[in-house]
Amino acid sequence: MRLKNVRGAKAVIENSEYIIQKPSSYKGKFNTIFDNSNPIHLEIGMGKGQFLTGMAKSFPNINFIGIEMYDSVMVRAVQKQELEQLPNLRLIKVDATGIEEIFSNEIDVLYLNFSDPWPKKRHTHRRLTSDRFLKRYDSIFKGVKTIVQKTDNRKLFEYSLKSFTDYGYKIVELSLDLHNDEYFNVETEYEMRFSELGYPIYMVKVTK
Amino acid sequence: MRLKNVRGAKAVIENSEYIIQKPSSYKGKFNTIFDNSNPIHLEIGMGKGQFLTGMAKSFPNINFIGIEMYDSVMVRAVQKQELEQLPNLRLIKVDATGIEEIFSNEIDVLYLNFSDPWPKKRHTHRRLTSDRFLKRYDSIFKGVKTIVQKTDNRKLFEYSLKSFTDYGYKIVELSLDLHNDEYFNVETEYEMRFSELGYPIYMVKVTK
Repeated sequence: MRLKNVRGAKAVIENSEYIIQKPSSYKGKFNTIFDNSNPIHLEIGMGKGQFLTGMAKSFPNINFIGIEMYDSVMVRAVQKQELEQLPNLRLIKVDATGIEEIFSNEIDVLYLNFSDPWPKKRHTHRRLTSDRFLKRYDSIFKGVKTIVQKTDNRKLFEYSLKSFTDYGYKIVELSLDLHNDEYFNVETEYEMRFSELGYPIYMVKVTK
Repeated sequence: MRLKNVRGAKAVIENSEYIIQKPSSYKGKFNTIFDNSNPIHLEIGMGKGQFLTGMAKSFPNINFIGIEMYDSVMVRAVQKQELEQLPNLRLIKVDATGIEEIFSNEIDVLYLNFSDPWPKKRHTHRRLTSDRFLKRYDSIFKGVKTIVQKTDNRKLFEYSLKSFTDYGYKIVELSLDLHNDEYFNVETEYEMRFSELGYPIYMVKVTK
């Protein structure tokens, strides 16, 4: 992802009521933020927020939390939400490696959309589907663990399917050409641009 | 696959020394046919035998058995083998549904190449990667169960990956574009023709 410096991004993020400012203080009780007991779906690396905003509109009875570490893209997600004011959407600025300190036994579904493929072998453990990350996710899930991944990167997808099944996940949905299949799909910004080039988008849903 | 009536096919098959005529009499002791204790790899639906002949040449210390039910294609495999006379290759004319009556605790690797996709839902159980077939395979394997599948059919491949992992198999090798990857690969007749059209060939290796 190209990152631009966006003037004032930091201030926007620090002052938005839709950003959870001290997320670890809600560990195990994020439902209190939404004031209901609906399922909570989490996206790691939500970028500019198009996917999560679309999902939150489509599924008002699910709570959505988006995580992003870069101010310059996160500010766009915040701006979308300031306009939409969706009651079932909140955002957190944090690095994914700290996820275990934030959530505990409360996430139903995890979305990983067009994550950094980290193609070099020595960076394998930085991939969000590496066994190191899958281990981190274990404690954040409540009950059945469900991960949904979308990517255009063939090597990352091949790696992820191996990593998922090696870690005990089973494949319950799979598309090797999502845009020519009949799954319900909210596109990310990146996905809209990429799919116009005619390359396939891969999608998998795994459970454990 | 288009099937032509090949004159004399039946006689060729019945008289070849490379065809195992009463396979169930070797159940549990196919190694006696090869007179060694090398691993045995099995292909279900070997067609004209290009893949299995190529594999048997490349790996002289592995024994290969090919199964096919149609005379008209099997005769081509027999003719290849009559020329090559590879000591580590034998053929069996049988329907895959009877596989449990033929092998017991003796197969190391199973190959499923470009199997019939049986696209209709009511034919699901005819797919060679359906749970009904995976169950049949259980008793033929010795130790770790390994299945290698190649196909150009996206829907069959998506189905198979779900079916494999649902049945407890883990993905250990995966390519969503085999001909642009670096795996060792012996092509089937069908694969050679198909890949010239530029569509991807899918490959997966699973173990349980």
